Amino acid sequence: MHTEIKKTHIDEFKDLLGARETESIKKLVKDLHASDVGRIFQGLDDKEAMEFFKLLTSVMASEVLLDVDERQRQKLLDSLQPERLIEVVDEMESDDAADIISELPAEEARHVLDGIDVKDSIDVQRLLVYPEDTAGGKMQTELVAVPGHATAEQGIEEIRKKSAGMENITNIFVVDTRGRLIGVLPIARLILSSPTVRISDIMDSDPIKVTTDVDQEEVARLFERYDLLSLPVVDDRDVLVGRITVDDVVDVIEEEIYEDFYHMAGINKEERITDPPARSLKMRAPWLIINLGTAFLAASVVKIFSGTIEQLVMLAVLMPIVAGMGGNAGTQTITVLVRSLALGELEMKDARRILLKEVTVGFLNGLIIGVGAAVIAYLLGAGPVVGLLIFLAMIANLVIAGFSGAFIPLLLKWLKVDPAISAGIFVTTCTDIGGFLCFLGLATIFIRMGFL
Amino acid sequence: MHTEIKKTHIDEFKDLLGARETESIKKLVKDLHASDVGRIFQGLDDKEAMEFFKLLTSVMASEVLLDVDERQRQKLLDSLQPERLIEVVDEMESDDAADIISELPAEEARHVLDGIDVKDSIDVQRLLVYPEDTAGGKMQTELVAVPGHATAEQGIEEIRKKSAGMENITNIFVVDTRGRLIGVLPIARLILSSPTVRISDIMDSDPIKVTTDVDQEEVARLFERYDLLSLPVVDDRDVLVGRITVDDVVDVIEEEIYEDFYHMAGINKEERITDPPARSLKMRAPWLIINLGTAFLAASVVKIFSGTIEQLVMLAVLMPIVAGMGGNAGTQTITVLVRSLALGELEMKDARRILLKEVTVGFLNGLIIGVGAAVIAYLLGAGPVVGLLIFLAMIANLVIAGFSGAFIPLLLKWLKVDPAISAGIFVTTCTDIGGFLCFLGLATIFIRMGFL
Repeated sequence: MHTEIKKTHIDEFKDLLGARETESIKKLVKDLHASDVGRIFQGLDDKEAMEFFKLLTSVMASEVLLDVDERQRQKLLDSLQPERLIEVVDEMESDDAADIISELPAEEARHVLDGIDVKDSIDVQRLLVYPEDTAGGKMQTELVAVPGHATAEQGIEEIRKKSAGMENITNIFVVDTRGRLIGVLPIARLILSSPTVRISDIMDSDPIKVTTDVDQEEVARLFERYDLLSLPVVDDRDVLVGRITVDDVVDVIEEEIYEDFYHMAGINKEERITDPPARSLKMRAPWLIINLGTAFLAASVVKIFSGTIEQLVMLAVLMPIVAGMGGNAGTQTITVLVRSLALGELEMKDARRILLKEVTVGFLNGLIIGVGAAVIAYLLGAGPVVGLLIFLAMIANLVIAGFSGAFIPLLLKWLKVDPAISAGIFVTTCTDIGGFLCFLGLATIFIRMGFL
Repeated sequence: MHTEIKKTHIDEFKDLLGARETESIKKLVKDLHASDVGRIFQGLDDKEAMEFFKLLTSVMASEVLLDVDERQRQKLLDSLQPERLIEVVDEMESDDAADIISELPAEEARHVLDGIDVKDSIDVQRLLVYPEDTAGGKMQTELVAVPGHATAEQGIEEIRKKSAGMENITNIFVVDTRGRLIGVLPIARLILSSPTVRISDIMDSDPIKVTTDVDQEEVARLFERYDLLSLPVVDDRDVLVGRITVDDVVDVIEEEIYEDFYHMAGINKEERITDPPARSLKMRAPWLIINLGTAFLAASVVKIFSGTIEQLVMLAVLMPIVAGMGGNAGTQTITVLVRSLALGELEMKDARRILLKEVTVGFLNGLIIGVGAAVIAYLLGAGPVVGLLIFLAMIANLVIAGFSGAFIPLLLKWLKVDPAISAGIFVTTCTDIGGFLCFLGLATIFIRMGFL
């Protein structure tokens, strides 16, 4: 029975490492899944991790290196002897090898590229050219390709030749004499075919494919939409150059979604809760400083109305309610919209309809929340005119929230800027300023007109 | 070349539907991927969608029904004749059929269950028992299982028998005489084996598996951690009852992450940006009303200090800065923490360390942002004592933000409540009240002591 790694397992390894029981450790590791060994590394301090890493086989070390977080990987890479590093990288699939080599200093990267298998080295160097977040950057060069005139039997033979260093073979790709992709064949179908049938007669001849420059977000969307297990990648002359497998895409999907929400909250996508305080501080303070700037703008608006507040302190009590509810409503709109934009459910043509809808929802929510706010004003001792005032200001600010919550992400998208990254701060700036301006401005008018 | 559906394609279909060109439509649809036909439905109004749906084959209709959003699915289901509904459901895999049937009114569900293939009906009824968000609710009963003593050739024969109604066969499962799971065999390995070799000699005998009651979030985590393509599901006696495939898990991963962030922003997970205003209103207003309640609490705190504000209106200008920055910092902490909790990177044992770290980050951020806030106070015309006041209050409130941002999600997790769903509102309540209390309370003390 497969057992999951628990804290007790990690403690056991810590004890064994402390006692330098290398043989017991090696024996224990042999029965574990690489990703479970990765989990153990999570629980070790740097010194223990380096000790442990030395005891692993090259295969296991290569998988662990890919499994641990970036910070620990850096530590482990630094601790490796050059020859051992070459051995470990040689065990990796081309895409993983390229990822690791791209993290090395130039000289060390060159040394590893010279040390590993020549064919692998050429593949890896080709992959290093592509930006990390494109199909080219995500693909691996290990794949099974056969000409269309080959038979099913020859297809199986080709799988046999390639299968040693490859995981997750679910499809074979069919190419013409120039290497251009002409079809895809699931191996479940290959297995059921007569050995002498031609591959071109049983393949899917209209395969879903991408060019190397396609963004990883688009790649993920194709996997989802068509329930793919692997996706062929072609160059601009349609020549098959790699494949992307579903397990890599799962990570991309997760990364992309978290990135959106991290951006909305002003967090660097690399941050993890277990990072040391200094690192978290470095990543979070800049965003807070930017926010402080927008808070300054909002406070300036309040400053303008100091005189009004002096006449009626109740305004100071109630004004954060108007601003805050606008922020909440704006965040709701952004969150739903960012999701739709990320999933490609919206086109720019829909912009006008979305804006109108969000303004409508803002107005209707304003009616409801405005009444609630008037009740709160009454409970806090304000008179009926202040109640009317907060009711009107709330409607105005929730309309502002709906409009800016929809307009700003759409505008950023149209400008080809990530809508998540700055929408949150723009929208809350709008709702803070809008809230104070509507509420205090209206109050000033009410006072001048003698209602208050 | 596979082409993606664009707005122009949808318009073309709208025109053809308007002109009742049923033959042209049928011809066009035949060359499309089911999921692309689903995209076309997204662009149609309800009447067009029902017209179009009638023209689809049962196979295509079954796939489209699973692809469209919940609201449209309901419309299409309502429009179907009972006999046609049976045909369409009969084309589905067991898990999808169960999902659809569970959305039908009881009588209609019974009618469909009586109408479809008897064996399918038994499978579907068995699946209907499991909660939707568990392994049992996500699994399908279609799978290839063989006894360990079978040969590779017999394994292939078994795949042949089952393959007609099944997609994504990547593994075969190996069972003992009582149906208990004893191993898993990737078909890529089966294909390369000698026909006479015993399955039990080439299978992986320590398979990763789950019981039917395991939560879908845990299922998704196993797929990610071990790069699985399919996962066997067993009952409490270890008998193989189903499998979950990676394409279903991709949806779960996405759903779970968006759910967390929707919860944080106070959005119902079913909401989409394209929903009509009335539906969005119904989903968003309750959350805003709850928020209004917490805004009332914060305003009450300000009310207590009305006298203090009356003496120095500058306090009203600056107080939203202290409260707002606390909210921003608290949201940063929650976002990073919710991610870690969702990915299972944290255990409750780490709680004390995380709390200490977040309080430290809060304090250090407080020093930086506090200085910035003092500068802003100066720019807005406040004196040096008010500058000191906002500096101290900011440090206090960012410590509150760090503490509550970490403590509340951890507490909710410990109470087995979804930490995302209510953490946001609790934390901003803490930082609003904390901000006003620290700033205005300290100001009151300063005034009493004659500093202000």
